[in-house]
Amino acid sequence: MTIIAPTLEQQIEFIKENIKTVPHYPKFGVFFRDITSLLANAKAYAASIDLLVKHYQEANITKVVGTEARGFLFGAPVALSLGVGFIPVRKAGKLPRETLCESYSLEYGTDRLEIHRDSIKSGDKVLVIDDLLATGGTVAATVKLIRQLGGKVDDAAFIIHLPELGGKERLEQQNVNCYSLVSFI
Amino acid sequence: MTIIAPTLEQQIEFIKENIKTVPHYPKFGVFFRDITSLLANAKAYAASIDLLVKHYQEANITKVVGTEARGFLFGAPVALSLGVGFIPVRKAGKLPRETLCESYSLEYGTDRLEIHRDSIKSGDKVLVIDDLLATGGTVAATVKLIRQLGGKVDDAAFIIHLPELGGKERLEQQNVNCYSLVSFI
Repeated sequence: MTIIAPTLEQQIEFIKENIKTVPHYPKFGVFFRDITSLLANAKAYAASIDLLVKHYQEANITKVVGTEARGFLFGAPVALSLGVGFIPVRKAGKLPRETLCESYSLEYGTDRLEIHRDSIKSGDKVLVIDDLLATGGTVAATVKLIRQLGGKVDDAAFIIHLPELGGKERLEQQNVNCYSLVSFI
Repeated sequence: MTIIAPTLEQQIEFIKENIKTVPHYPKFGVFFRDITSLLANAKAYAASIDLLVKHYQEANITKVVGTEARGFLFGAPVALSLGVGFIPVRKAGKLPRETLCESYSLEYGTDRLEIHRDSIKSGDKVLVIDDLLATGGTVAATVKLIRQLGGKVDDAAFIIHLPELGGKERLEQQNVNCYSLVSFI
């Protein structure tokens, strides 16, 4: 028996079909892409991590930063597989040591993200990971925090990209290349 | 040259020395055990995941449940390594599909945790993972949710155990065995 490894397209399709769409959540007219169904399928979840790791294997990344809370679910396993440290960026007030803080816009009002000041060293080459790229606001704020601490950020990776919301262009204007596994129009 | 593998005691010591203690956080008199310094050290973080995986390798676990947000950082990699699905338990209002909800006590007042109703099947053998076992309130509520959905929970695992707060005894009364890597008195 010959076992043929799945192509990249087949792997992407497998990942995509394990992401449930929840209509009208959190409000009418929004189609929410739910990664919890991906996490629940061990093979699909592992495939998504493997694809991210392969993409950055030769990129000399020294730290992975993931944003609370869904970014932890992809960033932490990627950091472990790349053999580098994982740095959490959290909502304000949750990190116990000295932090740097950055505000970012939400649909209504603003929110704040924090990073530990000693988590990034000058010269670190940082990969930012989140589950989903929409407007790019969270990751733009995260990139600012890392750069203020002297880290270099050329790359951000996502499971899902919603291209209509302009996040990729916004991050590219800040010299951040975006890589994502699946897109939903 | 002979390379001698570190003993279990040496691995535990290595993990423990990578957990920073933050005095008087979040309030005076509390010594906060900070796992972000563990995550930042790739080898120590990987060692902590490896020890949990080894402990449950033969336990026929079918799902790992992790609690928001720090439980994600250990539960998700353990699920991936065991080759089983990961199920997040989240604060109320964050899961997009139909959920089951459980209240639990905090120092002042209560909070609510949710799980997707379709995430656990009858007969699932579930391992619950969180970063720290203190009073056990979060995990006790999580166990209730899983059992209401028909899942079997015999085990909960933690990086850190604070034995003076009684969480282990509380969970054992609910027939949950607790395993933890390091203790702080």
